[in-house]
Amino acid sequence: MTLEIPEVVINRLPVYARALAALALDGETVVSSQTLGERLDVTPAQIRKDLSYFGRFGKQGRGYNVLGLLAKLREILGLDRKWRVCLVGLGRLGQAIAEYGGFEPQGFQIVAIFDSDPASVGKLVNAVHVHDSAELDSFLRQNPVDIGIVAVPAHAAQQVVDRLVNAGIRAILNYAPMTPHVARDVAVRNIDPVLAMQSMTFYIKKAEPSGK
Amino acid sequence: MTLEIPEVVINRLPVYARALAALALDGETVVSSQTLGERLDVTPAQIRKDLSYFGRFGKQGRGYNVLGLLAKLREILGLDRKWRVCLVGLGRLGQAIAEYGGFEPQGFQIVAIFDSDPASVGKLVNAVHVHDSAELDSFLRQNPVDIGIVAVPAHAAQQVVDRLVNAGIRAILNYAPMTPHVARDVAVRNIDPVLAMQSMTFYIKKAEPSGK
Repeated sequence: MTLEIPEVVINRLPVYARALAALALDGETVVSSQTLGERLDVTPAQIRKDLSYFGRFGKQGRGYNVLGLLAKLREILGLDRKWRVCLVGLGRLGQAIAEYGGFEPQGFQIVAIFDSDPASVGKLVNAVHVHDSAELDSFLRQNPVDIGIVAVPAHAAQQVVDRLVNAGIRAILNYAPMTPHVARDVAVRNIDPVLAMQSMTFYIKKAEPSGK
Repeated sequence: MTLEIPEVVINRLPVYARALAALALDGETVVSSQTLGERLDVTPAQIRKDLSYFGRFGKQGRGYNVLGLLAKLREILGLDRKWRVCLVGLGRLGQAIAEYGGFEPQGFQIVAIFDSDPASVGKLVNAVHVHDSAELDSFLRQNPVDIGIVAVPAHAAQQVVDRLVNAGIRAILNYAPMTPHVARDVAVRNIDPVLAMQSMTFYIKKAEPSGK
């Protein structure tokens, strides 16, 4: 049944959850779809429609219970659990990812790092062991991981994605500047600031008086 | 007229351009929407429809001229120019952004960095001067910038976004874990790996045999 929920709806739920968590920190106990929408530049109708996929929330004219809706969204998204993450690639970007402090408080724990540089293998980065990339497959079979983060160069990325998927991983966070191919039952999210900027220049280009 | 092009279409164009550039590097001169679609996990019909917003490309049954379509997409998106970028925030994340080598080859040049830490102000990072955040507004009025990258903590981000927009910037790349409010004529893209992972756990949670 839930199979028919559009991916764009699923992608908005973490944004709602984050806003609700911020409201809860501010001491708010109830929020209307109007107020929540204004915080997020989403229409109230959109919020109500998105949430309607998962049941009935809030009372007519009363708004949503902040903590109640937050708990429900966390349950829907699986944010009430710990998720095991591995990182492949320990170049400059991989290093920044390994040292990023924002994953663990949200339940995403990097349990292993893989790199092919002998100078890195065997080290600890942010208290996580760096393994030889050659050990990726055997490690993952013995230590199942939920999410794989790919931070290798573009030319090596598809092969890494394939190895992660073959080892049973069903969620890939890809930082390499390419579009990985995966089977339909594998989720992929691409993090690419260059693509993000390239999708904005269309608009600022149009806004210029010269029209060029 | 082009005002009616859906944002999702614009967001796919840089992905097409990147794939075409890779094909050109491989020596390919012609590509069908079928082949391009397979590379990108997009249907051929979707590609043809997206491109149809901008005119007629390719010949029936002959496919697209790789370099011709690439040049056209680069012109549409404004990728054939240089864009001036400023970075606000030089914490661990800002440092990684400042040192990232992938922006400049794509035409995005970081021309100034702003931070409020006196220990950083006055330094050069990747040959770019670090200014005091207090100078942000006056600097931008004298040195117009096209895109602002926000890499400050969540609690400080909205104020930074407001200052960038007030100084005339119409495109914001936001790394802070919050949803900024901007006027309708300002483009914003959010880079948030935690949200990306949170939107995948819904799917891997469902895939587990326990159904929990």
